[in-house]
Amino acid sequence: MRDYQAFLAAAAALLGERGLTTDPDLVGPWLTDWRGRFTGRALALASPADTAEVAALVKLCGEFAVPIVPQGGNSGMCGGATPDDSGTALVLSLRRMNKVRAFDPAAHQITCEAGLVLQTLHETAEREGLRFPLTLGGKGSATVGGLISTNAGGTQVLRHGSMRAAVLGIEAVLADGSVFEALVPLKKDNRGFDLKQLLIGSEGTLGIVTAATLRLVPAVAERRVIWAGVGSLHAARKLLLHCEAAAGDALEGFEVMPQVTLDDVLHQLPTARAPLASPHEWHTLIELVAGPGGEERLGEVAETMLESAFEAGLLDDAVVSANETQAEAFWLIRDSIAAAERAKGPAVQHDISVPVAQMPAFVETAVPLVEAAFQGTEALAFGHLGDGNVHFHVIAPAGVDPAEWYAGEGKAISARVYDLVTQWHGSISAEHGIGQLKLGELERLGDPVHLALMRQVKQALDPQGLLNPGKLVPLASPADSF
Amino acid sequence: MRDYQAFLAAAAALLGERGLTTDPDLVGPWLTDWRGRFTGRALALASPADTAEVAALVKLCGEFAVPIVPQGGNSGMCGGATPDDSGTALVLSLRRMNKVRAFDPAAHQITCEAGLVLQTLHETAEREGLRFPLTLGGKGSATVGGLISTNAGGTQVLRHGSMRAAVLGIEAVLADGSVFEALVPLKKDNRGFDLKQLLIGSEGTLGIVTAATLRLVPAVAERRVIWAGVGSLHAARKLLLHCEAAAGDALEGFEVMPQVTLDDVLHQLPTARAPLASPHEWHTLIELVAGPGGEERLGEVAETMLESAFEAGLLDDAVVSANETQAEAFWLIRDSIAAAERAKGPAVQHDISVPVAQMPAFVETAVPLVEAAFQGTEALAFGHLGDGNVHFHVIAPAGVDPAEWYAGEGKAISARVYDLVTQWHGSISAEHGIGQLKLGELERLGDPVHLALMRQVKQALDPQGLLNPGKLVPLASPADSF
Repeated sequence: MRDYQAFLAAAAALLGERGLTTDPDLVGPWLTDWRGRFTGRALALASPADTAEVAALVKLCGEFAVPIVPQGGNSGMCGGATPDDSGTALVLSLRRMNKVRAFDPAAHQITCEAGLVLQTLHETAEREGLRFPLTLGGKGSATVGGLISTNAGGTQVLRHGSMRAAVLGIEAVLADGSVFEALVPLKKDNRGFDLKQLLIGSEGTLGIVTAATLRLVPAVAERRVIWAGVGSLHAARKLLLHCEAAAGDALEGFEVMPQVTLDDVLHQLPTARAPLASPHEWHTLIELVAGPGGEERLGEVAETMLESAFEAGLLDDAVVSANETQAEAFWLIRDSIAAAERAKGPAVQHDISVPVAQMPAFVETAVPLVEAAFQGTEALAFGHLGDGNVHFHVIAPAGVDPAEWYAGEGKAISARVYDLVTQWHGSISAEHGIGQLKLGELERLGDPVHLALMRQVKQALDPQGLLNPGKLVPLASPADSF
Repeated sequence: MRDYQAFLAAAAALLGERGLTTDPDLVGPWLTDWRGRFTGRALALASPADTAEVAALVKLCGEFAVPIVPQGGNSGMCGGATPDDSGTALVLSLRRMNKVRAFDPAAHQITCEAGLVLQTLHETAEREGLRFPLTLGGKGSATVGGLISTNAGGTQVLRHGSMRAAVLGIEAVLADGSVFEALVPLKKDNRGFDLKQLLIGSEGTLGIVTAATLRLVPAVAERRVIWAGVGSLHAARKLLLHCEAAAGDALEGFEVMPQVTLDDVLHQLPTARAPLASPHEWHTLIELVAGPGGEERLGEVAETMLESAFEAGLLDDAVVSANETQAEAFWLIRDSIAAAERAKGPAVQHDISVPVAQMPAFVETAVPLVEAAFQGTEALAFGHLGDGNVHFHVIAPAGVDPAEWYAGEGKAISARVYDLVTQWHGSISAEHGIGQLKLGELERLGDPVHLALMRQVKQALDPQGLLNPGKLVPLASPADSF
């Protein structure tokens, strides 16, 4: 039997009044994920002030066998930061640790604590003519630690990679309370296993990220956003290859959506206008970006790229943003898809990837297959074609009871989609992670050798199983349950 | 007691005549590393034909508790592929597995087996107008598997990263004989720990890389090689920052050497000429590269970059290669440094890195410090300033007995250099790895938390300790010796 009272007393002594609370009004908001899918209970909410406090707290949790649920902005998509309903876990918030420790604009590097909010990071970089090349809808709440722990994606992965590519150094507290320090970025270092990589994307199951050194890039001096209509997703893929060859590193985004999705958005956003005069089977949103000094050339690159695409018959119609207002109007359409679809009724959403070259064929196979198997549903794919990552949404038939549908047909649809994507050598989680939402599916569909290896690593680094239990790492069997 | 005869009989039955030999004439050449620093003994040399044979062999080794020393081109710098002198290990050569399994030029991807030689990979890519953006002196022998296992570097890391950055997918045999398959490259995949990253750079201590999917880039359509003289290494660093800003992704290499090193090379290469008319404290070799379509612009970029550098007083003199012959002549000087220094007599060499911004100060501190502490020696630094990675060579006083000097003062010098680089938060191995050469120094100077984590991972993935024992992973204590 764990002595929770003794633990709480020791934790309170360690962290002080600002650092620990059991007040339900203060703890409550952090027990449900932002999408409202998961609600748990917790012993308390800890908000340590620095890495030393995190380390001491983790050590204490080890002594009392108290599970730890690390939490950043609590805006993840898979319930990875929500405790289970046992009430035995401590929610460890990193939000108080939000300092910028060092900023070297000349070297394009910033070292900050895990609780720094993405929006603040953007603003900090901008003040020095730089930018952090990753953004996403939850930027007002998402923290650096959460972005690292989930290896977050977004719309700039095509050019800049996922969060992993932006992390130059890391500091983390391990399960035994020791501090893994690798913040000083060395461009070359071959002194052994790249342990930093193991912590990135591990959703707090191997260690708690407390700080990071991140890579910045020059601010955007000029951009061109192009909206182009094409006849099929295959045609979109051909256009992507053309843009990659013609624009090179200037190509920062390549998003796709079908006409029906565009219609849904226009229906929901009465002030928005269709970018092109007539309908097209598929629409592509292409962003070209230039840093300081590249402004003039960018217009030329965009023009040449589009002209040659027209000549080669790679697109049916296209328009280039004439100014920032228009560029933002194009992106507003893209960013409003999720809301527009929510308005259509209950839907199951799948963040999946397959090899980029396979994506058109996959979507053309999966859409009719799902719609035929589940009568009355509507399947839609949109998103980051350049990354081989689409968001595959299936909207419920009209008139269903939402709760009943989610629990029944919705689950069956998701299983079918994940079966299919696995057959296509793809991923059941492209950018949102596993958390608790997809743990069962990962266990069901994951490669046994990969899962065994994950368990071995987890067991080695967290033998007590106290770091974010029930997330990401499928257990070997229920008997192994922590 | 291990039953070696039974093991050899089973291995012979598994691999056939081409796949296993104990003939000393055939095994012998693979028992000494190419620099002649380490010589071991082995039970036999195994050369499996495919991944299934590797897997079966590793399983067999597990049953008989036979250690395995994986080997690619046997051209590593740290003795990582040489067995110890117990004669109990099996050398497992991947050289027979040299097939290209798949090549998709449009996607810039190639999947090949571990034994493919780097030179052959270059030629294969070139035939399709592509290139593999990593090269090094041993390209005629170095294999893809060896490059991955050592996370090899080279002169193009500044732009393209180390080997890790080129690896999109991996296949490896784990210690229990299971096959870890992650060859299909997904641009986004967040299904758990990135286990591939753990295998890259692990020198065969966690698994045996059998195949990989690699990233290719467009062939070089045009290049400009610039030789510039500057007054100090600090000035060279300022010039580097300027070139990064002015040339962006066109900047592919930035190498430095002091005047004395240039003189040594010119002395050794009577046909070579000094690129600049007068001497300079430091010389920089800057390479700008353009892919197809970027030829015209490259000349413009080079010109603007140099003009503004002159105007800002960032360099004293510079010359741009007028043609490929001249470009190659510049690189020949750079590539001849090692040989020129060898001709000067016994020397200890250190492949070290510190944060790029610190490198000038580090060299200015380390050179006089070492020369003062070890009278009569000459310390030289040259190499990849853009990566914060210099090769720091210390040449013995004239007239010493080489063997005696290496064993005595040479060792003391290396320890001093590694002490210093550790104080500067740098790495005792930037690009050559640890192998057996630096194992003791890693144990002495490594961060205890990092070392503990490495041992935990090693123990979890290779509990019998049969994968390349005595390399890379410092043991906790002699009692833990496998």
